[in-house]
Amino acid sequence: MLPVDPDRFLKDLHALRRFGASGVGKGVSRPGFSDPDIAARDWLAMRMSEAGLKPHYDPVGSLFGLAEGRSLLMGSHSDSQPEGGWLDGALGVIAALEISRAARAAGGPPVSVVSFEDEEGRFGVTTGSSVWAGNQTLEGADALHDAGGLSFAEARARFGVRRGDFVDPGRFSGYIEMHIEQGPVLDSSGEKLGVVDAIVGIRDMHITFTGQQNHAGTTPMHLRRDAFQALAGFNARIAERFANVMTPQTVWTIGHVAVHPNAASIVPGRVRFSMQWRDGDADRLARMEEIIRTAAAEIAQEMGMEPGFGPMLGLDPVAMDPGLRGALERAASDEAPDRWRVMPSGALHDATNVARLMPVSMLFVPSIGGISHDFAEDTDEADLVTGLNTLARAVAALG
Amino acid sequence: MLPVDPDRFLKDLHALRRFGASGVGKGVSRPGFSDPDIAARDWLAMRMSEAGLKPHYDPVGSLFGLAEGRSLLMGSHSDSQPEGGWLDGALGVIAALEISRAARAAGGPPVSVVSFEDEEGRFGVTTGSSVWAGNQTLEGADALHDAGGLSFAEARARFGVRRGDFVDPGRFSGYIEMHIEQGPVLDSSGEKLGVVDAIVGIRDMHITFTGQQNHAGTTPMHLRRDAFQALAGFNARIAERFANVMTPQTVWTIGHVAVHPNAASIVPGRVRFSMQWRDGDADRLARMEEIIRTAAAEIAQEMGMEPGFGPMLGLDPVAMDPGLRGALERAASDEAPDRWRVMPSGALHDATNVARLMPVSMLFVPSIGGISHDFAEDTDEADLVTGLNTLARAVAALG
Repeated sequence: MLPVDPDRFLKDLHALRRFGASGVGKGVSRPGFSDPDIAARDWLAMRMSEAGLKPHYDPVGSLFGLAEGRSLLMGSHSDSQPEGGWLDGALGVIAALEISRAARAAGGPPVSVVSFEDEEGRFGVTTGSSVWAGNQTLEGADALHDAGGLSFAEARARFGVRRGDFVDPGRFSGYIEMHIEQGPVLDSSGEKLGVVDAIVGIRDMHITFTGQQNHAGTTPMHLRRDAFQALAGFNARIAERFANVMTPQTVWTIGHVAVHPNAASIVPGRVRFSMQWRDGDADRLARMEEIIRTAAAEIAQEMGMEPGFGPMLGLDPVAMDPGLRGALERAASDEAPDRWRVMPSGALHDATNVARLMPVSMLFVPSIGGISHDFAEDTDEADLVTGLNTLARAVAALG
Repeated sequence: MLPVDPDRFLKDLHALRRFGASGVGKGVSRPGFSDPDIAARDWLAMRMSEAGLKPHYDPVGSLFGLAEGRSLLMGSHSDSQPEGGWLDGALGVIAALEISRAARAAGGPPVSVVSFEDEEGRFGVTTGSSVWAGNQTLEGADALHDAGGLSFAEARARFGVRRGDFVDPGRFSGYIEMHIEQGPVLDSSGEKLGVVDAIVGIRDMHITFTGQQNHAGTTPMHLRRDAFQALAGFNARIAERFANVMTPQTVWTIGHVAVHPNAASIVPGRVRFSMQWRDGDADRLARMEEIIRTAAAEIAQEMGMEPGFGPMLGLDPVAMDPGLRGALERAASDEAPDRWRVMPSGALHDATNVARLMPVSMLFVPSIGGISHDFAEDTDEADLVTGLNTLARAVAALG
């Protein structure tokens, strides 16, 4: 196990929290490219230098702290949601810094550190790592605008002369990212660590049922073609059929519903709703899609309606590297025996993109109450140190 | 049977259609207090004079054609929806005019005619008859505004010096209103006439389920408190329990649904929706309310949520007068043997208000396809004449 210093680690975490501190609990407001975000990165660059790493901003503002020669890359992101927590992203960056310092003190292995820019998607989705990994072009990203109309090109220009070229991914042997879970699984089970087996894939599609808008007083029940009732019937049918397909890690959500004309006295003539499902296994995602399309078509036919399917958007599941994951599992077993689990990541992370370039793996620590993207997000500091120690064991073992 | 003239009746109906003719099919656009509405009423006043009736505008623009002495009142309204049909309201007014003419020719009984103003609710709901019947005060109505910001006081001033006092309801022995069904029951069964037994009562309430808004990727299904799923569960449970309570005339509708925050990637934390139910029997409405409140409370408890109930709005059912209804039933049986039925009115009509002042009854003729409040609204002219003849038989029998 590398000789990490938990006090120095926690002190740096709290120091980073001062940039964009919201004044509400431990919350921060540090969106990508904001003044607090840039100031935080400049502070990080200084700490990287002090740790013997060479700070390097890439063209989009992702900050690398480069060890000499071939190295393991660790990190996450230091930008936050507009109303964010102090640990989302920051934890992985500061843990990487501490591991790098401890590894250097121990004579190796060399560990580089990264804080990707705009993971929280002020412009795109995990924008900094996405451009680095080639999931989108720089030109494409430059055309993105934030909610206030600022372009990504204008935003990244704020880093000015700090910026150098993109870093050659070939200098890294792999990528390890520690992150808060952002869900309730570990907190509700009393477990301390989650070793991620896969970042789940997402499928997302809007479905429309078109029935017949009618007077809610003069139209008898048996003559109605009520689009809301079609949605209710569809919901019940997929819930029943999914039961044979889902694992405890599978999730599905009807989160957006638009009823037309949406008036108390009118039988709904149309409903458009989102159907989203996530799982770590691409085959299971496909079986669920089949159930969804079949159930929607059946319900529509039974009720004399037209079903409509929007384009299906999706990201495929990303499996974690067996070697890196195995090292994390052994370390978790040593650090918190019987209080860790293998679990999927239901949320996207920078690791999703980095997986295109090198082997990746992720480690989760609990989120109190499962809360994230909120000033109230928090984790017990003892759990943060357990995470740090687990990384220290795993990286030492990787050698 | 009174010596009605079907051709004169249809000719007057088509003449009225020219005021505000939409140019789309037989549709009309003749909202209350609009230029076409006022012109149509002035034309009607002339036809009333020609029929030996004394035209009289009341303070809100409802136009009466008064027979001398005590009389039966018949009519409906001649204003329309902004995109309305040629028969909605107009049919009852012109039929009343023809019955009055035929009764006068036959030496009695005396029949007065009325076209209530703003039945279609540009300002309130059945505004003209509502003020006349004392369901709302004139001062209260004057404070109402239409969607364009015009006040009811300003609108009714458009009738200027035409207006006299409110008509004393004591001069009328009862009120009969013929109307298109505005629903599909008669058209789909091939029947020609509906004798109304009651104008149904309405109950309307918004219900809210408050669960827990969460990340749709990181929150496992068994830890969710998904407000949309609560709505789906509530919908299924009331449908099952209503089956033991409902008659074929009972209707219920969830027509308005607001999911919060209504985003595909967020487990809904709150849903607010309308629950409306209608029936001709006040006891049944109360039993349904009990089912609704119990089911909502159960679902909320099962899912760890808070249920919220908005204020319950409602109008009680209005039973038709047995004497007038009996006369219509005997006439229907003679005019269209085995092709008529007793049925409730699922929609409100001026008769709802007039019932506070005198005995009322209503007669329905079919609506093709059940369509109303649409330029496409229509009824076969033979069915219109069947309705007229039925009124002629009933009024003759009432003597």
